Formats: sequence, C-alpha cells, structure tokens
Amino acid sequence: TEPTSGTDTTALRTFAKKEGDKYIVNGQKIWTSRAEHSDLMLLLARTTPRDQVAKKTEGLSIFLVDMQEALGNGLTIRPIRTMMNHATTEVFFDQMSVPAANLIGEEGMGFRYILSGMNAERILIAAECVGDAKWFVRKAADYAGERTLFGRPIGQNQGVQFPISRAYVQMRAAELMVREATDVYEGGGNAGAEANMAKMLAADASWAAADTCVQTFGGFGFAEEYDVERKFRETRLYQVAPISTNMILSYVAEHVLGLPRSY
Amino acid sequence: TEPTSGTDTTALRTFAKKEGDKYIVNGQKIWTSRAEHSDLMLLLARTTPRDQVAKKTEGLSIFLVDMQEALGNGLTIRPIRTMMNHATTEVFFDQMSVPAANLIGEEGMGFRYILSGMNAERILIAAECVGDAKWFVRKAADYAGERTLFGRPIGQNQGVQFPISRAYVQMRAAELMVREATDVYEGGGNAGAEANMAKMLAADASWAAADTCVQTFGGFGFAEEYDVERKFRETRLYQVAPISTNMILSYVAEHVLGLPRSY
Amino acid sequence: TEPTSGTDTTALRTFAKKEGDKYIVNGQKIWTSRAEHSDLMLLLARTTPRDQVAKKTEGLSIFLVDMQEALGNGLTIRPIRTMMNHATTEVFFDQMSVPAANLIGEEGMGFRYILSGMNAERILIAAECVGDAKWFVRKAADYAGERTLFGRPIGQNQGVQFPISRAYVQMRAAELMVREATDVYEGGGNAGAEANMAKMLAADASWAAADTCVQTFGGFGFAEEYDVERKFRETRLYQVAPISTNMILSYVAEHVLGLPRSY
Amino acid sequence: TEPTSGTDTTALRTFAKKEGDKYIVNGQKIWTSRAEHSDLMLLLARTTPRDQVAKKTEGLSIFLVDMQEALGNGLTIRPIRTMMNHATTEVFFDQMSVPAANLIGEEGMGFRYILSGMNAERILIAAECVGDAKWFVRKAADYAGERTLFGRPIGQNQGVQFPISRAYVQMRAAELMVREATDVYEGGGNAGAEANMAKMLAADASWAAADTCVQTFGGFGFAEEYDVERKFRETRLYQVAPISTNMILSYVAEHVLGLPRSY
Ligand SMILES: Cc1cc2nc3c(=O)[nH]c(=O)nc-3n(C[C@H](O)[C@H](O)[C@H](O)COP(=O)(O)OP(=O)(O)OC[C@H]3O[C@@H](n4cnc5c(N)ncnc54)[C@H](O)[C@@H]3O)c2cc1C
Ligand SMILES: Cc1cc2nc3c(=O)[nH]c(=O)nc-3n(C[C@H](O)[C@H](O)[C@H](O)COP(=O)(O)OP(=O)(O)OC[C@H]3O[C@@H](n4cnc5c(N)ncnc54)[C@H](O)[C@@H]3O)c2cc1C
Ligand SMILES: Cc1cc2nc3c(=O)[nH]c(=O)nc-3n(C[C@H](O)[C@H](O)[C@H](O)COP(=O)(O)OP(=O)(O)OC[C@H]3O[C@@H](n4cnc5c(N)ncnc54)[C@H](O)[C@@H]3O)c2cc1C
Ligand SMILES: Cc1cc2nc3c(=O)[nH]c(=O)nc-3n(C[C@H](O)[C@H](O)[C@H](O)COP(=O)(O)OP(=O)(O)OC[C@H]3O[C@@H](n4cnc5c(N)ncnc54)[C@H](O)[C@@H]3O)c2cc1C
Repeated sequence: TEPTSGTDTTALRTFAKKEGDKYIVNGQKIWTSRAEHSDLMLLLARTTPRDQVAKKTEGLSIFLVDMQEALGNGLTIRPIRTMMNHATTEVFFDQMSVPAANLIGEEGMGFRYILSGMNAERILIAAECVGDAKWFVRKAADYAGERTLFGRPIGQNQGVQFPISRAYVQMRAAELMVREATDVYEGGGNAGAEANMAKMLAADASWAAADTCVQTFGGFGFAEEYDVERKFRETRLYQVAPISTNMILSYVAEHVLGLPRSY
Repeated sequence: TEPTSGTDTTALRTFAKKEGDKYIVNGQKIWTSRAEHSDLMLLLARTTPRDQVAKKTEGLSIFLVDMQEALGNGLTIRPIRTMMNHATTEVFFDQMSVPAANLIGEEGMGFRYILSGMNAERILIAAECVGDAKWFVRKAADYAGERTLFGRPIGQNQGVQFPISRAYVQMRAAELMVREATDVYEGGGNAGAEANMAKMLAADASWAAADTCVQTFGGFGFAEEYDVERKFRETRLYQVAPISTNMILSYVAEHVLGLPRSY
Repeated sequence: TEPTSGTDTTALRTFAKKEGDKYIVNGQKIWTSRAEHSDLMLLLARTTPRDQVAKKTEGLSIFLVDMQEALGNGLTIRPIRTMMNHATTEVFFDQMSVPAANLIGEEGMGFRYILSGMNAERILIAAECVGDAKWFVRKAADYAGERTLFGRPIGQNQGVQFPISRAYVQMRAAELMVREATDVYEGGGNAGAEANMAKMLAADASWAAADTCVQTFGGFGFAEEYDVERKFRETRLYQVAPISTNMILSYVAEHVLGLPRSY
Repeated sequence: TEPTSGTDTTALRTFAKKEGDKYIVNGQKIWTSRAEHSDLMLLLARTTPRDQVAKKTEGLSIFLVDMQEALGNGLTIRPIRTMMNHATTEVFFDQMSVPAANLIGEEGMGFRYILSGMNAERILIAAECVGDAKWFVRKAADYAGERTLFGRPIGQNQGVQFPISRAYVQMRAAELMVREATDVYEGGGNAGAEANMAKMLAADASWAAADTCVQTFGGFGFAEEYDVERKFRETRLYQVAPISTNMILSYVAEHVLGLPRSY
C-alpha cells in the first residue's frame, strides 16, 4: 500500500528506474507490516511511467529486496503506532539500489503477479477471522453461563443469549464459504468471487462476535486482563485490510452480477 | 399448529379418545394450509391427558385422517384470509371419528414421529428461501442495470448496487448451509443444528433480498404487475413459519452453546 | 411522477404547448394517487424544451386541471393495482386542452413552486409514519402481554420485548424530529434538512415497528383479520415515496455535510 | 459497581457496621474511575443485612469518605488497565473507619439517593456521546472530501457518503432526545424514560459514527496519530456504562410499555 494511492493500487508512485544492471528505487510504502522483523521484501514499483502505458495495470514490476543490505542504504523503516499491535511501518526508498537480477518475472508484468496472490491472502485472512469468531463465541458463551446476576446466569436472558447464537450461526456460514473458496482455489479455478465473499462474511462474523463478546462481558470486556478487548481491537482491522468491504461489494456487483462499475 | 398453544406444541388441546375400534376427536387446528385441496391429513392429538403423563412430550399420537370422508362428519374447514395466497385454513373437529387402524405407530409416541419430520421440513423451506433470494437478486440486478435516471443506470450507484451485492453474498452463504444440512441429514446424523441454521440464514437472506428488490424497483416494486410485491409478501412468512427466528436462536443457545433454556 | 424519469423530476416529458389562450398537453404521469376521486389536479409539465433552457430546472410550469371536464377529452385515468390500497393510477394526456388562465404563477417557474410544497409533504408523511409506528408498538405490546405460551406472556421474553422497546424509542426520536422540522418550517426557515431527516427517521421507525409487530403476532400477523398485515404493507411505501431513502442520504451528504454530489 | 453484583446494584456486599460514632467498612468496589485523583468518595454500602430488610432496596446507606485520610488506613486503590484511558480502579475496604457524621441523609435510605442522581448521569453521558458523534461525523466528512482515489474524492461514492449521512441523522435525533430529557429533568418531572432513551440513542449514534469514521479513514483509522482510533475505543464504553443497552430496553418494556419484567 502507498499513502496517496491506497486501494487504487495501480496509481502507486514508487518508481524503479533501470540503470545498467540495477534499478534505483525512489518512493514510499505505508502499512508494511513486520518490516522490522523481515529479511526480504516483495516490492511493487512502477518501471514505466503511467502516461507511457496503454493500461494503468501495465508498467509495474516486482522486486525482491534484501532488507538487511538496503537498510541505511536508501531504505528507511519507521514504525507506525496503531490501535493494535501489528508491528506495521512506513518504508521510505531514497535512491535505493536493487540488482536487476532481483526482478521477479518479466518487467512490466508485476501487477498480474500481485493479483495472483490476493485471492490466497483473502482466504487466509478469512480463515483467521473464523478462528477469531470461534474464540469470541466460546468466550462469550462461557462467561454468560457463569456470570450470575439477579439470581441466574446472564446467559439465560435472551438479550444476552440471542446475539451469541446469531454470531455463532454467522461464523458457521462464513466457515462454509472459506471452505468453498479453498476448494475452488485448490481446484485451480478462479476463486475471485468466493475469496472475496469468504473475506467479507468472515470479517463481518468476527466483528459481530467481537462486539457481542465485549457486550456480554460488561465492564470486564474492557479490562486488558481478559484479552477480549485486545482481540476486539485486532479483529476490527479486517473490515479494512487487506481489502475493504466496499471494494468487495463493488467486485460482486461488477464481476458477479454484471452491474456497471460505480467509480 | 393450534390457536392457543402455537409454538408450544406439546400444550395442544385437540384430544382423541379411544372408544372401541375408533378414536373420537375434538379440538381445533389453525394454519392448516391447503386443507381444502387435500385428501389426507396427518393429525397430532393428545390421547392421554397432560396431567397423566410424566413428560409433556408423552401421550400424543398421530392419525391418518381421510378428509373427504370426515368433511361434514365432524370435520369443518374454514379458510383464513392472509397477506399471501397460502390457501391456509382453520380446521375444527367435533366428535370426528377416526378408525383405530389409522393410528400411526404406537399410541403416545406421536411427538417423536412429528419431530423426525421437522428437520426435513426446515431444510426444505430453507431451500425454497434460497430460490426466492436468487429470484429477487436476479430481478433487482436486471432492473438496476436497465432503469436509467440522471443519465445512467441506477445500478451504477453504490446505494443501489451494494445492497444487491450483500443480498447475493448472504444468499450464497445460506445456500452452503442448506447443502451442509442436507449432507448431515442424508448421512443419517442429527441435523438439528444445521437444519435450524439453514432455515434462519435462508429466511434472512430471502427477506433481505426481497426488501432490496422492492427498494430497487422504487414505485414499481409495489405494482402487482411485476410479481415483486407478491413474492415480497410471501417470503416474509419464513421469519415465522414453520418455526420462528427466536425459537432457532434459542435452540442454538441451548443445544449448541450449552446455555440454559431462557423460558 | 412520470414513468421514465422517476426521481429525476426535471427529466419529465409531459409537454404543454401554448396555442392561443390555451395549452395543449401531451404526455403521461404514473402513481397519481386518488385521481379517480379528485376534481382538480396540479399538473407539472414542461413548457420550454429542455435543450432550450439554461438549467434543467427551468421551463417547467404548473397548471390547474379541471379533471371532470378533461376526462374523455384527452385525459384518461387507468388504475394501477398495487400491494396496498392507495387508489393510485396512471394518467394519460392526449391533446388535452387547458385554459391559459389555469397556468399557476409564471410560466417556466413551475419547478420552484413544486419544490416549496415538498418539505411540507415530507413532514406530513413523517407525521403519518409516527402515527403508524405508535399503532404498531401499542398493538405489539398489548398482544405480547396477552399471548401466553410456555406458561407466561410471550412479552416476558427479551427476544419479544426488546424489539418492541427499540421500535418505541426509535419512534420517539423520529417524533422529536418531526416536531423540529415543523418548527423550522412554521418559523419560515429552510426546513430542507429537517424535513428530509424527519421523513427518513419516521419511515424507518414505522417500518421497524411494523416488522416487529408482525413478528410478535406470529402466524396471526399475516391474518387479514387483525389489520397488522394491512398496515405492514401500507407503511412499506414510505421507504420509497414521496422520496426514497437514498435521495435523502444524498441530500444530507451534499447540502448538510458539504460532500460532492454522487451521481 | 461491585465485581460480583454488577448491574444488580442492590446485591452489593460492601458492609458498613456501626460501632459507636463511626462505621467500619469492609468490601470492595470495581471500576471506580479516577479514584487516584479524587479527594472525596461517595460510598454506597449495606448497613442492614439483606435478609433483615423487607425489600432489597432498603438497608443501604451513603457515606462521604475522605480518601486522603483513608488511604493506607483500610483503603487500597489498585488501577485497572483497560482499552481506554479512563483512569479506572479497584477499591478495597479493609476495616476502613468512617465517622458517623459522614453518613449522608438517613441510614438505610441510600439507594433512593443514588437513584436520584442516575438520570442526571445518563443525560450527561448522552450529551457527551452526541459530542463524540459530531466529532466523528465532521472528521469523516472532511476526510472523505479530501482523500482522492480513482480520480475523485472517496466521499463522492455513496458507499462512503451514505453511512456518514446516516450517522449524522442518527446523531441529530439523539440530540433532540437529550434536549427533551433535559427539559423534563429540569422541569422537575420524572425523566426516567427520556434519560434512558437519550442515553441509548446517543450511545448508539456515537458508536455508529465512530465505526463509520474508522471505515472512512481506511488504514489511517487505526493510526494513533489521527485520534480516530482513540475516540473509537473510548466511545464503545457507553454501550455498557453507566448502564447497558439491555437494561434500558428492559426499563422501557417494563415502565413505559407495561410489559412484565423479563428477569
Ligand atoms: C494495521 C495495518 C496493517 C496493514 N498491513 C499491510 C501490509 O502488510 N501490506 C500492505 O500492503 N498493506 C497493509 N495494510 C494496508 C491495508 O491493506 C489498507 O489500509 C487497505 O487496503 C485500505 O487502503 P487505505 O487505507 O489506503 O484506504 P483507502 O483506499 O484510502 O480507503 C478509505 C475508505 O474509502 C473507501 N473507498 C475507497 N475507494 C472507494 C470507492 N471507489 N468506492 C467506495 N468506497 C471506496 C474504502 O472502502 C475505505 O473504507 C495495513 C493496514 C493496517 C491498518
Ligand atoms: C400462512 C401460514 C401458513 C401456515 N401453514 C401451516 C401449516 O400448514 N401447518 C402448520 O402446522 N402450521 C402452519 N402455520 C403456522 C406456523 O407454523 C406458526 O404460525 C408458527 O409456528 C408460529 O406459531 P404462532 O403463530 O402460534 O406464534 P406464537 O407461537 O404465538 O409466537 C408469537 C411470537 O412470539 C415468539 N415467541 C413465542 N415464545 C417465545 C419464547 N419462549 N421466547 C421468545 N420468543 C417467543 C415467537 O417467536 C413469535 O415471534 C402457518 C402459518 C401461516 C401464517
Ligand atoms: C402506491 C404509490 C403511490 C404514489 N403516489 C404518488 C402520487 O400521488 N404522486 C406522485 O407524484 N407520485 C406518487 N408515487 C410515486 C413515488 O413518489 C415514486 O415512486 C418515488 O418518488 C420513486 O420514484 P420511482 O418509483 O420512479 O423510482 P426510481 O426513481 O426509479 O428509483 C428506483 C430506485 O433507485 C434509487 N435511485 C434512483 N436514483 C438514484 C441515485 N442517483 N442514487 C442512488 N439511488 C438512486 C431510488 O432510491 C430507488 O430506490 C406513488 C408511488 C406509489 C408506489
Ligand atoms: C472503563 C470503565 C469505567 C467505569 N467507571 C465507573 C465508575 O466510575 N463508577 C461506577 O460505579 N461504575 C463504573 N463502571 C462500571 C459500569 O457502570 C459497569 O460496567 C456497568 O454498569 C455494567 O456492569 P457490569 O460490568 O458488572 O456488567 P454486568 O452487570 O455483569 O452485565 C454483563 C452483561 O450482561 C447483561 N445483563 C445483565 N443482566 C441482564 C438481564 N437481566 N437481562 C439482560 N441482560 C443482562 C448486561 O447488559 C451486560 O451486557 C465503569 C466501567 C468501565 C469499563
């Protein structure tokens, strides 16, 4: 991701200019998670200016960057403090040199390579969200069964019990879609629709479960001690990353339902 | 269903009293759909008074009633006008005689037999709801692509497009759960949880799709000519019948999550 | 409203051509409610073709039509069957003649006059929706207090009780906004924002109350006898007419929050 | 609040036993916010055991505690780390002595005094939530107007714009209810219903606005730098404190709609 282009990936500005047997990279990335703990980086950069390519998806290339070598030689990493511990960072490239041998695949075809990894990433994150949802549902149901007020477990009240049931059902449905997406993906088919749907359903399920869990715990939902608030913060991210809900709804409208692109 | 007991099936009042080689039935049913077009009726009635059985699920029996014979001989059918054409009726039993040979299975075991058909019914209705949802999504997407206002198809606006996308995704998830429930059921397992979840997810999906479709059609959503309003009215039923959402959430809480029964 | 222009009012096609001391009208309206029971009609028609005016809001005029006189002389009314009894119709103008004296105000200024009535109409409909919501809440609460299942009123269950409470609170908030809009309107101020918000809040409240009421009544919610299903069908209209929710959200975004127009 | 009784205030266990001209207090409170920065504490404790009073609301008393004096003399304060900086604590009383002169009002009437402050507190928190909602709406609308992707401000997309509009409308409605509650309260009337409704509407509005704001900011919604994530965490509290949504819905059902108490 880059700060000025965000979701509009092909508008990225980081540029890698070929000079002899290397590329000189200038630009900036944001939200590069765990950069400080990584040895290698897959870098997407423009190699042909946007106004010199027919389609904006062309002219982008991927490089493998040896981060330890680059650090201090054109590469700067600055951590970003966020709501959750995601060890995310900003990465700056100032005349950073990358050997031409580190170009992955063909020059100018980078966007296509990136895309091919995106469905896998969405399915992966969806699976993570299903796991989160399970954790929240279990945690909430257990607490609701134990916490006793007004002479009975709070979980005996439908106002407490029903949202947990709903979150459970939502999670189960999302889980089936994750499985479906995995099947399509592993079968070699185009998993675009299923991967996107799995991501949205699972992120919605985990967020609903998280919210219900906090509410079930009452004040204790906010205490660091129970981990509920921590995972609540963490799971919110998946409404936005790696792709936000609006972009998924757009994808379904355009590629599944045949409606015109809205933007 | 009976008018005074509704969801609380075992509290039904229709009573079948054994007299020699027949049973004499008194009582009333409500919402007996298509009774006017049926030859046979499966009748659930109490054969042992509630205060003489250990558990309220005991003492109920099932009979096969020859409706053509019974009509005018103790059986009266009165149609009920409802929001949709469901050909539903009230059925009255006044000293209606049923041959003892028409008792199905063992006397007193009727509730168990009824239960065994309920999961199948829920999966069936769920499948119907998925079909409805597909119809609404297709209808809405087509109309949104054609109706042109302010110089472009209304479906190009995210406010029109996104709810259709959402309904589509919701339908796909429900469909997977219907398939899951069918698999468990056909595999001979206890499909209680899956059948209930499929019913809820599918009824929610078809209702969301119906509502979105009406909204997409604007004024035309209300015109009888387009069938949208007719199916909108029809699909609302499945939030209530054959089992209402609250009862499903209760089932999940109690039988899946292990929470105490709430009522 | 016209069939091809809908919400995009200034794109209407009905044309009134001046010929001596009268105007000759050709075109069509749709959803002209209660036309069959009306003596007079306020007719909005284009008097200068759209390509001859600087702004599309110009060149529209309003006429007072004596319907009894026009019927059969160029005016045809055809009822439309809809989901609710709204006595709505299609109206066709075929060389219908209107005396020039029946022009209201200045020629070409009609859109401005129409607009000035719209805020009043929205506040009025909002007030009607608040009334509907009150009816549904009262009806639902009464039924929930009386209907006894599993040994207690269904209204003792939070799954039944909470949605009724929510609908009540939503209605109360909408009612305050109706009052606010009325105050601004009667004070002579620009009630655009408040009238639109009142309309949206009230229509949402009545629809939530309607849905909750049907659900509370279970199967009886669908029986014509209780009027619940009738009012449920009726109140759905106000998500669409006289202005749909999307258009209100658009209005708020553009005129209150200062965001760019989205279409 | 006490850890074992939570929402069920009259089940609190902290006990103040009269001994001569002082009371000896034993027990524990939780979520006593800003105790470390306070000089005085209003303490609610039981002075007559629950089994010796006719109604559980009797036998509770209020004391004014000089915290500086008590610290180390029976009073221990232990900070609780929570999701937001609320400087909240646990407070332990171990044979803490309070002069009898510090009893407020009559012994045994404490619950009544506490109740009288609760409506004011709810209105106050509601007002705070309205303020939060305004901040989020403004922040979101501004960002949506500036952030440009795919060649136009993201706020031009209805998927971004409409949720902000909705949050705005919700906030305005809540604000009117806060004003209504204040009027009733200041007029000396029973503001119970209005204070509770204001609290629920405002907390819902601020939470919807917060969620929308995070979503509008995309990844930047999670960066500490923008304060959006901080206020997002803070405003979540008001779904739970000082009274949770379920308790408000219960109050409305019981005291406004006349339904039976559900627990
Ligand atoms: C903690 C954290 C870790 C991350 N880790 C990584 C990482 O390791 N690698 C990486 O590459 N990225 C990472 N990301 C970035 C993440 O993928 C992006 O935040 C996400 O893709 C959204 O991009 P953006 O933040 O630029 O939002 P924007 O693209 O600016 O979007 C802002 C909002 O506008 C909406 N929007 C935009 N355009 C439209 C439109 N046309 N129609 C409707 N709505 C629209 C979006 O849905 C969103 O709600 C991380 C982010 C965070 C917060
Ligand atoms: C058009 C139509 C056709 C039908 N066809 C048939 C048919 O062919 N055969 C047949 O047997 N039945 C049929 N039914 C009946 C249907 O199955 C019932 O309406 C349904 O089971 C609900 O029962 P009820 O109407 O008595 O509602 P009730 O049981 O009175 O329930 C009313 C409301 O209270 C709620 N509620 C009740 N108890 C609780 C609780 N403890 N906790 C929380 N919430 C609770 C319910 O969820 C519901 O929302 C039909 C109904 C209709 C409207
Ligand atoms: C029973 C009934 C009675 C009526 N009575 C009257 C009457 O007496 N007089 C009268 O003049 N009219 C009347 N109407 C018409 C009513 O006002 C219109 O139906 C309404 O204004 C919507 O117009 P439309 O039906 O053409 O929908 P359209 O304008 O075609 O809209 C269809 C859908 O697209 C959405 N949409 C359209 N453009 C956009 C956009 N740019 N962005 C996002 N969403 C968009 C709308 O929100 C709506 O959901 C009546 C309608 C009905 C059904
Ligand atoms: C940061 C923070 C600061 C606070 N500051 C203060 C303070 O300064 N002073 C103070 O006195 N308190 C304070 N509180 C406490 C707060 O008021 C309580 O957390 C709140 O009243 C809920 O009580 P509880 O946490 O014990 O939840 P519980 O009462 O245990 O409730 C847990 C959940 O069960 C639900 N529930 C309980 N009973 C029922 C029922 N019968 N039916 C349906 N649902 C039910 C609740 O709605 C809730 O969702 C603070 C809390 C926090 C987190």
